[in-house]
Amino acid sequence: MSGVFITFEGADGSGKTTQLRRAAERLINTDVELVVTREPGGSSAGAEIRALVLETRDQPISPVAELLLIEADRAQHVQETIAPALERGALVLCDRFTDATVAYQGAGRGLDLELIATVNRVATGGLQPDLTLLFDIEVEEAMRRLAARAGSAGEDAPTRFDMERADFHDRVRRGYLAIAAAEPSRVAVIDANRPVDEVGGDVDRLLDEIRCRFGI
Amino acid sequence: MSGVFITFEGADGSGKTTQLRRAAERLINTDVELVVTREPGGSSAGAEIRALVLETRDQPISPVAELLLIEADRAQHVQETIAPALERGALVLCDRFTDATVAYQGAGRGLDLELIATVNRVATGGLQPDLTLLFDIEVEEAMRRLAARAGSAGEDAPTRFDMERADFHDRVRRGYLAIAAAEPSRVAVIDANRPVDEVGGDVDRLLDEIRCRFGI
Repeated sequence: MSGVFITFEGADGSGKTTQLRRAAERLINTDVELVVTREPGGSSAGAEIRALVLETRDQPISPVAELLLIEADRAQHVQETIAPALERGALVLCDRFTDATVAYQGAGRGLDLELIATVNRVATGGLQPDLTLLFDIEVEEAMRRLAARAGSAGEDAPTRFDMERADFHDRVRRGYLAIAAAEPSRVAVIDANRPVDEVGGDVDRLLDEIRCRFGI
Repeated sequence: MSGVFITFEGADGSGKTTQLRRAAERLINTDVELVVTREPGGSSAGAEIRALVLETRDQPISPVAELLLIEADRAQHVQETIAPALERGALVLCDRFTDATVAYQGAGRGLDLELIATVNRVATGGLQPDLTLLFDIEVEEAMRRLAARAGSAGEDAPTRFDMERADFHDRVRRGYLAIAAAEPSRVAVIDANRPVDEVGGDVDRLLDEIRCRFGI
């Protein structure tokens, strides 16, 4: 595969999606083919799978069922979108990938980490990001931003993930940081408590560096 | 768990669903609590998952994504339906379960059998049927029955599984028989080429025997 695969990871409220859009706007005017995608919901079946996962239902979906749905979407997403784009030599920016599952379903919900690693490998066929930008933010700051966002017009209603308790979000944050500690050459931790342009400067530098490294 | 868990397995056209209904009608008048369910689609999220799996789509769903969707439905189905019913002491009759995944996705589509066994264990938490009735039928006879069924009024249009080629169905059949050979104490092979009442007599005997054995 000749493309470059970059994932944007972090808590809700960390600004990762804003930063991804910002990076995409900057890259859209370059020569490289840019593919911007997200999980869950990146595949053609994904919108339906994403709805299943995020839906608030009477009979709550079990943690294992949730994991397997997320991984089904991922398998389809890799096969129909990410892998072909990388084969074409594209620069793929993906909003959440395997690390989110380790952080949310593993560290957050307490599913066995080895089990998640196994199912992640099954779903991706072993594909890993070339670079992961981890937007690390204090839980209180993320909650504050989400509350402000929920109060503003035109935003989606909070999903059930937003409604989880603060200790859950703290476990997720630690889960993400543990991945970064274990794989420092792949995962760059970005302090996302700062203003958006300051964070964006770090993102630009990291993206320029990896494009240079891969000659893309 | 004090209930008894019985699965009905076999190819489309083998008559397993007809036999399950027949057995349920006979058992409904006994003292035991009877729970009749099926896969895919047994859970509250299952109807949507089943639709996703069976849907004919432009961008075909990948074999791994299909496996993970089936297993997500299974995880939810076990947690919300099968396990609680068994804890209540019910007799659970389930139309397809883990063996179908081994036969269809493994033997049929060529997914790694160990991988399927792993994901089956993840989804079920290790729950296995007490008895599996395998309705074994010649592929030609099953195809003949399916063609007749498709020609009759009021039946669903053939799903994409029906449209698979005969050699696929032959691999599925061999996959099922391999499971029965490996686990003869759990899996009873029933010759389903015979008339429905003759097959039903075997089913009745096997169900009476296991109810006697479990005192249910």
